Amino acid sequence: MAESGDGPKVLIAGASGFAGAIAARLVQEHPVFRLGPITARAEAGQRLVDLYPQHRVGAVLEELDLDAHAEQADAAIVGYPHAAAAPVVKALLDRGLKVIDLSADFRLRDLATYEDWYGEHPHPELIGQSVYGLPELYREQLAGAQLVSGPGCFPTAALLGLRPLAAGGLLADVVIDAKTGVSGAGRGLSHATSYVTITDSVSAYKTTGHRHRPEIEQELAVSGSDVKVTFVPHLVPVDQGEYVTCYATLSARVSADEIAARYAKAYADEPFVEVVSGPPNTRGVRETNFCRIHVQVEEHTGRVMVFSAIDNLWKGTASQALQSLNVMYGLPETAGLLPGAAGSVGVTA
Amino acid sequence: MAESGDGPKVLIAGASGFAGAIAARLVQEHPVFRLGPITARAEAGQRLVDLYPQHRVGAVLEELDLDAHAEQADAAIVGYPHAAAAPVVKALLDRGLKVIDLSADFRLRDLATYEDWYGEHPHPELIGQSVYGLPELYREQLAGAQLVSGPGCFPTAALLGLRPLAAGGLLADVVIDAKTGVSGAGRGLSHATSYVTITDSVSAYKTTGHRHRPEIEQELAVSGSDVKVTFVPHLVPVDQGEYVTCYATLSARVSADEIAARYAKAYADEPFVEVVSGPPNTRGVRETNFCRIHVQVEEHTGRVMVFSAIDNLWKGTASQALQSLNVMYGLPETAGLLPGAAGSVGVTA
Amino acid sequence: MAESGDGPKVLIAGASGFAGAIAARLVQEHPVFRLGPITARAEAGQRLVDLYPQHRVGAVLEELDLDAHAEQADAAIVGYPHAAAAPVVKALLDRGLKVIDLSADFRLRDLATYEDWYGEHPHPELIGQSVYGLPELYREQLAGAQLVSGPGCFPTAALLGLRPLAAGGLLADVVIDAKTGVSGAGRGLSHATSYVTITDSVSAYKTTGHRHRPEIEQELAVSGSDVKVTFVPHLVPVDQGEYVTCYATLSARVSADEIAARYAKAYADEPFVEVVSGPPNTRGVRETNFCRIHVQVEEHTGRVMVFSAIDNLWKGTASQALQSLNVMYGLPETAGLLPGAAGSVGVTA
Amino acid sequence: MAESGDGPKVLIAGASGFAGAIAARLVQEHPVFRLGPITARAEAGQRLVDLYPQHRVGAVLEELDLDAHAEQADAAIVGYPHAAAAPVVKALLDRGLKVIDLSADFRLRDLATYEDWYGEHPHPELIGQSVYGLPELYREQLAGAQLVSGPGCFPTAALLGLRPLAAGGLLADVVIDAKTGVSGAGRGLSHATSYVTITDSVSAYKTTGHRHRPEIEQELAVSGSDVKVTFVPHLVPVDQGEYVTCYATLSARVSADEIAARYAKAYADEPFVEVVSGPPNTRGVRETNFCRIHVQVEEHTGRVMVFSAIDNLWKGTASQALQSLNVMYGLPETAGLLPGAAGSVGVTA
Repeated sequence: MAESGDGPKVLIAGASGFAGAIAARLVQEHPVFRLGPITARAEAGQRLVDLYPQHRVGAVLEELDLDAHAEQADAAIVGYPHAAAAPVVKALLDRGLKVIDLSADFRLRDLATYEDWYGEHPHPELIGQSVYGLPELYREQLAGAQLVSGPGCFPTAALLGLRPLAAGGLLADVVIDAKTGVSGAGRGLSHATSYVTITDSVSAYKTTGHRHRPEIEQELAVSGSDVKVTFVPHLVPVDQGEYVTCYATLSARVSADEIAARYAKAYADEPFVEVVSGPPNTRGVRETNFCRIHVQVEEHTGRVMVFSAIDNLWKGTASQALQSLNVMYGLPETAGLLPGAAGSVGVTA
Repeated sequence: MAESGDGPKVLIAGASGFAGAIAARLVQEHPVFRLGPITARAEAGQRLVDLYPQHRVGAVLEELDLDAHAEQADAAIVGYPHAAAAPVVKALLDRGLKVIDLSADFRLRDLATYEDWYGEHPHPELIGQSVYGLPELYREQLAGAQLVSGPGCFPTAALLGLRPLAAGGLLADVVIDAKTGVSGAGRGLSHATSYVTITDSVSAYKTTGHRHRPEIEQELAVSGSDVKVTFVPHLVPVDQGEYVTCYATLSARVSADEIAARYAKAYADEPFVEVVSGPPNTRGVRETNFCRIHVQVEEHTGRVMVFSAIDNLWKGTASQALQSLNVMYGLPETAGLLPGAAGSVGVTA
Repeated sequence: MAESGDGPKVLIAGASGFAGAIAARLVQEHPVFRLGPITARAEAGQRLVDLYPQHRVGAVLEELDLDAHAEQADAAIVGYPHAAAAPVVKALLDRGLKVIDLSADFRLRDLATYEDWYGEHPHPELIGQSVYGLPELYREQLAGAQLVSGPGCFPTAALLGLRPLAAGGLLADVVIDAKTGVSGAGRGLSHATSYVTITDSVSAYKTTGHRHRPEIEQELAVSGSDVKVTFVPHLVPVDQGEYVTCYATLSARVSADEIAARYAKAYADEPFVEVVSGPPNTRGVRETNFCRIHVQVEEHTGRVMVFSAIDNLWKGTASQALQSLNVMYGLPETAGLLPGAAGSVGVTA
Repeated sequence: MAESGDGPKVLIAGASGFAGAIAARLVQEHPVFRLGPITARAEAGQRLVDLYPQHRVGAVLEELDLDAHAEQADAAIVGYPHAAAAPVVKALLDRGLKVIDLSADFRLRDLATYEDWYGEHPHPELIGQSVYGLPELYREQLAGAQLVSGPGCFPTAALLGLRPLAAGGLLADVVIDAKTGVSGAGRGLSHATSYVTITDSVSAYKTTGHRHRPEIEQELAVSGSDVKVTFVPHLVPVDQGEYVTCYATLSARVSADEIAARYAKAYADEPFVEVVSGPPNTRGVRETNFCRIHVQVEEHTGRVMVFSAIDNLWKGTASQALQSLNVMYGLPETAGLLPGAAGSVGVTA
């Protein structure tokens, strides 16, 4: 662990990825946390600012040195691919750090489900120790957590959108149609994410099953609605932004007013969830930790439709990790995550 | 009507709009049809090429002069807003022209439904005379039609996607989540379609009811499935392109193979519908009259998912009008709509 | 003027425009200034957040009431069109407010030049009282100013790029080729700024003379180089961002090292100008008050090439106004303009 | 060579690249040429339509087999990287095929210049046998050519823009500021061409010297103006499109009218060059073989400004190769390159 000083030092392991880089920036700009080592493999030796001029992080990326870097940090955010993450997470926990893992390694509580979707788990013994890092659902557990698993971006938007319905077992059936910006695919090179492929085109992908589906089902079940979800993501020509449209059939007749009241109540005190009076757009939450939600009952069919917008790299990944870290350290949950004095403004649309 | 000559002359009334301009271009490039007068109000006096350099139509836009222009044409494509279209359509019919109306005025067969969604109808007496201009469904009726109503862009993509399920009454329930490019909103100026609003953002719109819904329901019912549809359009940063994702619950247990066979059979001989083996993208059909469709059964839930991609201005509007016009005149249905010798290639994905 | 309180209150007159809205946001988030009334004409009665969800300003737009609003503010930022701005500026000055005018009304010091480009000037008597609000050039004069004229966005990028050459009379000739995002055209509706027009296209505009040219020439002359400038702006499919490429012929032989030294020295202590070692991009300065500059000598021809990147709405307009306001009030120049503790990081490229 | 049949068969070697794929499509749609084998390395075994659904070429990519494939073709278009191209070109020439090489291997006539910019030349003996494939300049030589070198995309736009000035030695000095779409970088994967890097950003690149500069200088010299060129390309968020802005100082005083007359005369009979009355945009020439040019004299400085717009993959590469092939085979130069009956329309702007 780092020497005592003004604030906890945060190691970013895997800082050259889109989310890791934003995490480094948010820690650098944070009023309490201090930026510890930032690491990368291929890009070691480069300054982060040269990869991401917009984040203005001048620190140099280093190859991860578990012993040395653990000495220089109190907490770590790990931005590794699944399966590669777990061993690093374990090593950092063993060295006394609090860890937020951005991979999928500790999101699923059921080992068999993990193995169905991701293959063998490197450290199944840690699964039970992890807290699911969605502060709106697990605020109390996060307070004392050593290991936190950052939710997937789609589950973040979907669960915040559906939670008030799922709680109380109201959800009988749900179709989740998601539209995501390209940054969600990560920084790895592929024809699928090149400019020429993406521009002026729309397409569905992973239609035979996306790994975020069992994660969504797990948390809806925890909330009270054990439901099989249809989840289809679409790629649209957007950089950062995720839009999740949920078509829900309820298990009981509930009036529109009652549903509105449920959402208002659920999120009245949430600093980062805004229930708005019309469909939000992703632009309005870009580069913020906010999730904007609109809910309405379709008279024609009785379906409940929920529209949920986030920035997939911020609330969907990096800034949500900071939100969790704030909770883990007993800091104000919004520390470093609101520009100036700005807070929620109850946006109409 | 125009003097006899090499081929029928086509008047484009409302050629300054996005779809009207493409119609003018397609007529100009057509091997048989000849471009008659092209008209516009605000832009009269300008050459179409100066509004749309890419279409290369050098003709000058004129104010519509019903008597004079009807004399110079055998057929007309009318690109007016609803309610404004019907009187022009009637006047052209009265003067002996074949007419394809791109507005909504003659899409709905039930007057009350029309009035619910669009207000008073200027010429209800003509409703029964119109043929719905989706050649894949109404080829025979189109052959002898004087008045054809061009389908809405969303209905085009949705109906081609769902028709093989609807036929035979298989469709019990369907959610249609559509993503459309901005050109679908037309050329009229609004903050909603400015570059700054659209770029890097996604949003649902008209979530309390879009006018294309009753049109979809009407044609699904005609096909055999009387079903209440949930239909939600989303605006994405795309110019031309429309992607319709359908989540269908069937009224009977049907195997995946059987569904595949239904689609293969339904579209085996269709020159402009391609059933592909994975989710299509809109880029692949941009500026073409093709509709690409992928269907799959979700094992997890038993739902049938259909993905349908078109260019909203081409197959969704202007080139489909030419396809209908080809049928109306007994020409090869693909005349002027295929580049060179190219035809369907049975795209894998 | 406003009652005394914690910090000066700032009226934003014309807050519904792109730049005015950002100014409102920056004042709201500012550690010292407080947001006073925000005004608009057509949008009066709406909350600013409903026009710009991303800025999170919950205040309601009001119609400007000079007497009432002047009472509630100590300073004003005026975001009106030229000619419309001057009378409001005068009225606010008369009521004792410090004023930053974002229009062109007080940028040009020569009345005849103003009238050549903009027509009759409503208040020529005020021209001499205005300070040109480019803090890097006029820091001292800004300290005591009552009236500040915000520079044009192109002049901001061009002058910061060329100043070290112009100073000392080194500039013999210069071609300025600018590429700008669409937001520079303002919020007014036009076909030229619709999504469909802009996407996937590049075009030059105002090639027979852009109003920012005399402004650039004026300030280069003040700096010591009286030179006729060729200036051509191009519109590219970008939202916020401006890239100015300058091709300069010097009046004396100067080595590449000496030029590098001049730039290094000129901007060593500037908090918002970064001289970088390769061509910058606009993404790296988006939504910041930074200007990134790269200078190099082309051996082949001896020309000096300067690349200057800003966000046209931030450093080019709104955040630069805040920078000036900080100077006018004796606050740290960076107050409210740097995220967290972040400062310049000497970006390599 | 292919057996005699209806039309010459064209082999596309390197058909998986952006330009090679378009060449394959254009040959497939051509009224006379027939598509021979199409080859690729990594993608061999795939159908071209699966890589590029929009081109609708159903043929399967094969690994190049010089002997077998030469037997099946009369001509070849080679889309290989420089240095890799020359040996294939030679092998195909040796087997009796007419060859159009899209690489840089035969563009520069001076071996030393080639080696300065590209390294050792694999077949310098062929340099003298190649004709520079810009039909507007070398139409006569193309008629009898066995080996044609396709010009670079920037040289195509720049030379068509400057030729009427260069001819007669009018060009004293020129700055060429180019803006190009991303497809110009080719299909190879790189962070520089990923969607996230490109969107909403502008940047100059290769500012210390781009390989197209000596090519431009070579052809301007041939035309009569031996001039050192400043050439700086910029990357903008565009897929296909290239915009070249030329700032020329003339060696003699020439009136605006005289310059206009020179351009009018130079291009009066050119089927693919349109001199327009205002700055063109790239959208207007997308997916066409047209080059649109606007020329004007800047009164303020006496400079001549030329704006030239092409599609970098079409007129800049693939369709221009077909134009040359038409000339080589004595076909109408526009065969297969104009939609329907469309021709030049003397676009105003």
